[in-house]
Amino acid sequence: MTATTKMVYRLAEGSAQMVDLLGGKGAGVSEMARIGIPVPPGFVITTEASKGFFELGRLPDGLWESIVENIQMVEEESGKRFGDARNPLVVAVRSGAPVSMPGMMDTILNMGVVDETVEGLGHLMGDQRPAFDAYRRFLQGFGNVVLGIDRKRFELLLTEAKQRHGLQFDYQLQPDSLQTLIGDFKQVIKEATGAGPSQDPWQLLRQAIEAVFSSWNNPRAQTYRDFHHISHEMGTACVIMSMVFGNLGQDSGTGVLFSRSPATGEKVLYGEFLVNAQGEDVVAGVRTPQPIANLAQEQPGTYQEIEATASLLEKHYGDVQDIEFTVERGKLYILQTRSAKRTAPAAVKIAVDFVAEGVITREEAIGRVVAGEVSQVLMPRFDLEAKQRAVGSGALVAEGLAGSPGAAAGIAVLDPDRAVQLSDQGTKVVLVRMETSPDDVHGIIKAEGVLTSRGGMTSHAAVVTRGLGKPCIVGCEELQFNVEERSFSARGKTVYEGELVSIDGSTGEVLVGEIPVVPPNPDDLAELQTLLAWADEHRRLQTWANADTPEDARLARQYGAEGIGLCRTEHMFFAEERLPHIQKLLTVAPEASRLAQDVDTLRALARNAPAVERETLAQRMDRAKLDLEGSVSVREFHESLAKLEEFQTTDFYGILKAMQGLPVVIRLLDAPLHEFLPNHDELVKEVALFSVAGADADRLAAKKRDLRLVESLHESNPMLGHRGCRVGLTMPEVYEMQVRAILTAAGRLTEEGATVYPEVMIPMVSHVNELQWLRPRLEAVVEEACKTMGVEIILKFGTMIEVPRAALTAAEIALEADFFSFGSNDLTQMTFAFSRDDAESKFLRHYVESEVLPWNPFTSLDTIGVGRLMRLASEEGRAAKKNLQLGICGEHGGDPRSIAFCDALGLDYVSASPFRVPVARLAAAQSAMGLLKPS
Amino acid sequence: MTATTKMVYRLAEGSAQMVDLLGGKGAGVSEMARIGIPVPPGFVITTEASKGFFELGRLPDGLWESIVENIQMVEEESGKRFGDARNPLVVAVRSGAPVSMPGMMDTILNMGVVDETVEGLGHLMGDQRPAFDAYRRFLQGFGNVVLGIDRKRFELLLTEAKQRHGLQFDYQLQPDSLQTLIGDFKQVIKEATGAGPSQDPWQLLRQAIEAVFSSWNNPRAQTYRDFHHISHEMGTACVIMSMVFGNLGQDSGTGVLFSRSPATGEKVLYGEFLVNAQGEDVVAGVRTPQPIANLAQEQPGTYQEIEATASLLEKHYGDVQDIEFTVERGKLYILQTRSAKRTAPAAVKIAVDFVAEGVITREEAIGRVVAGEVSQVLMPRFDLEAKQRAVGSGALVAEGLAGSPGAAAGIAVLDPDRAVQLSDQGTKVVLVRMETSPDDVHGIIKAEGVLTSRGGMTSHAAVVTRGLGKPCIVGCEELQFNVEERSFSARGKTVYEGELVSIDGSTGEVLVGEIPVVPPNPDDLAELQTLLAWADEHRRLQTWANADTPEDARLARQYGAEGIGLCRTEHMFFAEERLPHIQKLLTVAPEASRLAQDVDTLRALARNAPAVERETLAQRMDRAKLDLEGSVSVREFHESLAKLEEFQTTDFYGILKAMQGLPVVIRLLDAPLHEFLPNHDELVKEVALFSVAGADADRLAAKKRDLRLVESLHESNPMLGHRGCRVGLTMPEVYEMQVRAILTAAGRLTEEGATVYPEVMIPMVSHVNELQWLRPRLEAVVEEACKTMGVEIILKFGTMIEVPRAALTAAEIALEADFFSFGSNDLTQMTFAFSRDDAESKFLRHYVESEVLPWNPFTSLDTIGVGRLMRLASEEGRAAKKNLQLGICGEHGGDPRSIAFCDALGLDYVSASPFRVPVARLAAAQSAMGLLKPS
Repeated sequence: MTATTKMVYRLAEGSAQMVDLLGGKGAGVSEMARIGIPVPPGFVITTEASKGFFELGRLPDGLWESIVENIQMVEEESGKRFGDARNPLVVAVRSGAPVSMPGMMDTILNMGVVDETVEGLGHLMGDQRPAFDAYRRFLQGFGNVVLGIDRKRFELLLTEAKQRHGLQFDYQLQPDSLQTLIGDFKQVIKEATGAGPSQDPWQLLRQAIEAVFSSWNNPRAQTYRDFHHISHEMGTACVIMSMVFGNLGQDSGTGVLFSRSPATGEKVLYGEFLVNAQGEDVVAGVRTPQPIANLAQEQPGTYQEIEATASLLEKHYGDVQDIEFTVERGKLYILQTRSAKRTAPAAVKIAVDFVAEGVITREEAIGRVVAGEVSQVLMPRFDLEAKQRAVGSGALVAEGLAGSPGAAAGIAVLDPDRAVQLSDQGTKVVLVRMETSPDDVHGIIKAEGVLTSRGGMTSHAAVVTRGLGKPCIVGCEELQFNVEERSFSARGKTVYEGELVSIDGSTGEVLVGEIPVVPPNPDDLAELQTLLAWADEHRRLQTWANADTPEDARLARQYGAEGIGLCRTEHMFFAEERLPHIQKLLTVAPEASRLAQDVDTLRALARNAPAVERETLAQRMDRAKLDLEGSVSVREFHESLAKLEEFQTTDFYGILKAMQGLPVVIRLLDAPLHEFLPNHDELVKEVALFSVAGADADRLAAKKRDLRLVESLHESNPMLGHRGCRVGLTMPEVYEMQVRAILTAAGRLTEEGATVYPEVMIPMVSHVNELQWLRPRLEAVVEEACKTMGVEIILKFGTMIEVPRAALTAAEIALEADFFSFGSNDLTQMTFAFSRDDAESKFLRHYVESEVLPWNPFTSLDTIGVGRLMRLASEEGRAAKKNLQLGICGEHGGDPRSIAFCDALGLDYVSASPFRVPVARLAAAQSAMGLLKPS
Repeated sequence: MTATTKMVYRLAEGSAQMVDLLGGKGAGVSEMARIGIPVPPGFVITTEASKGFFELGRLPDGLWESIVENIQMVEEESGKRFGDARNPLVVAVRSGAPVSMPGMMDTILNMGVVDETVEGLGHLMGDQRPAFDAYRRFLQGFGNVVLGIDRKRFELLLTEAKQRHGLQFDYQLQPDSLQTLIGDFKQVIKEATGAGPSQDPWQLLRQAIEAVFSSWNNPRAQTYRDFHHISHEMGTACVIMSMVFGNLGQDSGTGVLFSRSPATGEKVLYGEFLVNAQGEDVVAGVRTPQPIANLAQEQPGTYQEIEATASLLEKHYGDVQDIEFTVERGKLYILQTRSAKRTAPAAVKIAVDFVAEGVITREEAIGRVVAGEVSQVLMPRFDLEAKQRAVGSGALVAEGLAGSPGAAAGIAVLDPDRAVQLSDQGTKVVLVRMETSPDDVHGIIKAEGVLTSRGGMTSHAAVVTRGLGKPCIVGCEELQFNVEERSFSARGKTVYEGELVSIDGSTGEVLVGEIPVVPPNPDDLAELQTLLAWADEHRRLQTWANADTPEDARLARQYGAEGIGLCRTEHMFFAEERLPHIQKLLTVAPEASRLAQDVDTLRALARNAPAVERETLAQRMDRAKLDLEGSVSVREFHESLAKLEEFQTTDFYGILKAMQGLPVVIRLLDAPLHEFLPNHDELVKEVALFSVAGADADRLAAKKRDLRLVESLHESNPMLGHRGCRVGLTMPEVYEMQVRAILTAAGRLTEEGATVYPEVMIPMVSHVNELQWLRPRLEAVVEEACKTMGVEIILKFGTMIEVPRAALTAAEIALEADFFSFGSNDLTQMTFAFSRDDAESKFLRHYVESEVLPWNPFTSLDTIGVGRLMRLASEEGRAAKKNLQLGICGEHGGDPRSIAFCDALGLDYVSASPFRVPVARLAAAQSAMGLLKPS
């Protein structure tokens, strides 16, 4: 920096682009000044100047002179003079870095109020009280910030003064008390520094600027920057602006407004206004502000000026604005403006309206909406004000993970059966559980929403409710259940079953009492469709849906799904009429399988046996074959399979019909087998109780039998267990049955003239040999079924890539698969060794909160580790088979940042739950347009 | 192949090198002939000839002429003539491919016996019975193999003939019965082919040769080759040799011998001999053979000839030989010789003896011993003959996985407490459990061996017993437990607690009854040390040991460990006097942690709070701090920690002292927390029972409290759960305590003049940030402890690479770690998504048996998938930090093929349980010498 470098900019000289030099606040105010918005006169000292200050340990040469010149310019503009006893200029000296560091650095207000000017200021204000109060505040701020005196010393004196006069609020102190307090404050400063505060405003100003600069390096700010990975090299600007006062009478005031409704997006001014008050009074909450609309009656001129200014700002920034303003004796000053936060429906409406109004282009509109939030448009939500009131009155009792968006209120119910019962009687219920399992699905379907104390973003509760479009909070570890009392507690409050609770699945908040729920607005849906249609023109990625039922499939199509990327077949077995058959299957399978294995073993033995032993082996083989053919277990095994095949054929018929003309990827059975069996702990309890209670022996024996079966299928780590294609290999009949059912359904539809595209997906593959073993067997089923029905159906066979080893050996696996679908939930689970069921509530939330992990990898893909496996599998898979179809069907398929990553990888499609399809459409477009980067 | 290619080789023309051309059998016999070993005269038709046959569909030109010439040569050598009525030559026509395909192809014996020659043969033999029997056998073999007649038709007639005469064995049939049978057999052939068998031996010979060639392409052989990935292009040779007969009187016989004892390696002939018998008689087991030693008395000349021949063969092949021989009227013929199978102690002794005898070099000796078996030298084993007898009499009841080598016999006991009780009374026990957990360790220590029905090669039972050097069988799923009866069953047998069982941990065999156990032989140990000392001169890899106690460490050093690669600290908490402290710690931790978090939360809030709120926050903070300081939970938390620190200091003092001068890698707490708590199912039962039984309320309440704690720590997938460094982050005090204990121990030893090299290993790292968070905290503990003690101790910090993501991001992690140690058990578990606890017994064994996986990846590293991660981590880790120390401490560290892989990767060391250190030393040498390849 040379001495000739410009170190001070008048506001109108700056612009929004000059953030690095003028800081965020300085650039923002400059931009307003530049386009003619009324802002208080002022200027900005650059970040470069602060760096010079750090280097030299004093203000760089020429800086002070520039400051003095600019103060004079402000004097001219305001018609006041700095340090003038009758007509004093009062300014604010604010820090303002290029990056927002809220509250970390210092600011000194009321600069220019000294003994000599305070009465003149009172005169200007038409009241001595605010003038003395400003002086009191100045001494307190300057003493603390510039002179480093413990602020408690001032606070104590202030509290004593109020107590002395029996007052509650600072503003109730009268001029004489304030004068006394000013004397006391000066004394404090004298004791601390050896001298009273300077009475030279110029000297005070210089000290304040140096203090503001220095606050860049205070420990608090340094820690903050370390924590947020912000460079320590940027320095801070210093913004000096004339103070304006909203407390100079009934024609003065202060307020906050939005240029459109942030709740609905409606085009009306929305905000609050407090007459004859300063900003602090609004924060202190002493008086209740009135709606901005009232101003239209009371001060129509001012209102019109505000309206015009808001409109100008909105057009200039091309976005809805959140504006702070002050009116000083009828003159409007805009203090700050920024893009307004808004709800998802408002964001959609505003973006679409702006296009209609010509404010932004369609392409800009696509970028204006946070993709991850659009599914909220489809969901019921809380009435915003009612929720705020409830939170204000302490209704918030716990916070968990936002498992599935939307809002619900109802009677808390702790078990699924009671949920069904009450719901059938017309009562709205919220199901509250430690965690949910497939056993609870009937209750989930009937509940308005679900709240669990365990589990994460890919837990059973979260996945099922997202599929159903119901709100859900998971992993709310704060909840302590008391099973006997049928209650749960958190933060000292206890909620008994039957009491009303409200849950916000978009934020994870649990509230006691009933907060009104607003249904999704049809207009909002229409505007969303408009926006998504624009988005569709830009995206490369196809958006498919995860759907298990014809209803889900229809919904998915309605929201724009171009295929089903994941149809889970195990959910289909949980229906009441089906469970007995799969349980029977599992009960008899060990015996049936043992008999079949005996034959296999003998065949293998015979192959290697010396001639002399073959005779005996042949006899044993004959006997084993007879055993196999005559076995009751084997008969029951096949009967159960046949029954299940009937059900499955109906299932597949329905979903394939709903998705005519589009691909449907059906995943063969994936669940661990024990999920189909009765609860283990319950059985342990029952066996223990029946044993002592002298209950009837048959029942005890039956329970014991069940327990033995459950224990024989027990696994210590079911996620790493006997599931997916492992069951396909150890019990091939099940996969064969499923493929036959798919073929039968597809065959019927073909005969009926429909065009269907079923694809078969094999889960949990870790070694190419698994596919090599399974595929020919399943293809034989296809061939036979086609021959029987006399139809020609081409069935694609593909695999999930969800086990790290599958990704690592993708080149081999690609040769046996027509497609890969990344099962990113499991892939994340295995790659991190984070249990999907446990990790989030046990330690993962702690990891994210303490920034050990930058985000929850079950929500947004870990692009470094898991992403490396995905890239490797995509590249090596496609290198081995050029036309390999690639998709993702984990929960990440509905997460915008993850979608951007999938887009970058060149996947063909993402598949998400039906309600996330709009999210995926928008995110895919944003990614293609470079508006959304991989996480 | 041209017409001039040599298609037939006389035996002496061939050699052991000519396997491709002469097949394995042909080359073997040729080699013997070449060096002057007495083999029956004969010749070999080449594999090329068979290929010519396949090509042309007939014998290639000139082949038959060569065969005839060679038969004439055999005639000259044997002094007999093919087809001569008085002095007939009888030959065997055998298949023999370049690769062993046992029993897959055909062989025709007794070729040359026809109506015209059978009596002449009887005359030569001095008995008509064997001659007719030979003819009978020929017709049966030729009819089946050459003419394709179902062998059952012959078998049926044979059975009928025996029944008619009330005979049990074939050899009891007298000449007249045999003649009748020969007539019947001819009739069968006539019925099947329209003509009786040819009586022209030359035509029969030609048919037999064509049949042997054709058998290369029979479906059985083709399937076998597909299955074993053997080329279909090799073709088979055909070996034609004069038949010799051991059943021509008391000066004839047949036998099998080893040139040294295969059980002990002792240098004596070892084998069996049957006078006046053919090979088939030995197989049929009709007469009991006598020990070969008896022959020295009965036929000293023959014995000496056998001895000299065996010695010659041994020297020639440089290895102990397994020899088949026949004596025909005092003349010795060697029919086959091959390297003898032997026990591990025998292998070691033989290799060392051979070096002493000058038969092989030291380098060759190193390659002669199967590295994986040498730990058996250190273990007790069953008396071989006693075990064989027991198996013969049906004592084998089940087979599981060979979890830890060695043999044990004792009373079956189903729970650890009873095991301790009986063992203390001097009874030897075998602990039989579904699976073991840390709760069972006291029982395991007292038991002779352990047998479990669940779990795999890296299950708790397997790992703990390997560490203790006790035999163990795991994953023995055949066992069905009956808890009430206190018994288990398998293969129709039931064993009650208190009955004797014997388990062979080297083979996985479970036997009922007590089989004598032989202790390891001190001479064997000495020979092993000799061999290992030779090996040490060749290996590059260091061999470290996994040891948790000073005793283990001393043992490891004794077996040659050069460091401790894994000292597990969680095992240390399970001792009776320690468990209460860790349980107390876990009980109070949630409350203590909540209080600490409150302070943290307030601090974070205060950091971002607007000025007006700071006052309130400061007050809340003061209160939270007071709560924290005054909390009973916090006090108890720290008391428990202090107590545990005392114990740990003693632990570390012991192990560091035992390993003076060598590195000791101490792994911080890794186990899931629930492992330290009471059993969940037991508590469920107790609470259920106490609730109805009206038991005292306090006890019920206590049990309920325990159950709540257990449930709060419950995890669905503990292997993917809250363990390792995750606990280190959520409860940093534990790791800090452990590091302090290490430092205190190291400090004391340093003061005592010892040199110690502790290293700290952090488990379950998946993200570099975990290390970044932990390392400075732990280094602060080191610094403080060093300062307090006034010593200078440099503590290396490293990490396990056991989570796939850690391997995938090794470059980042290496910057925060001084060393990597591959936790290959967990890495395999996560990479395959195979639960270590469940996979092997649930489906992995099925995978290996059906060759879906080439081997169990928990036993030998999966070099393709898991190995890719290891290679990537090694290469990228070293690229990021050149001197990064690399090792492996999973169970693979003791597996030879995995060791070869680690050697190829360039790791610095492998670490295995003390008893596997000799294995590692030998395997590392074999790998360095190119004698052992990565799996």
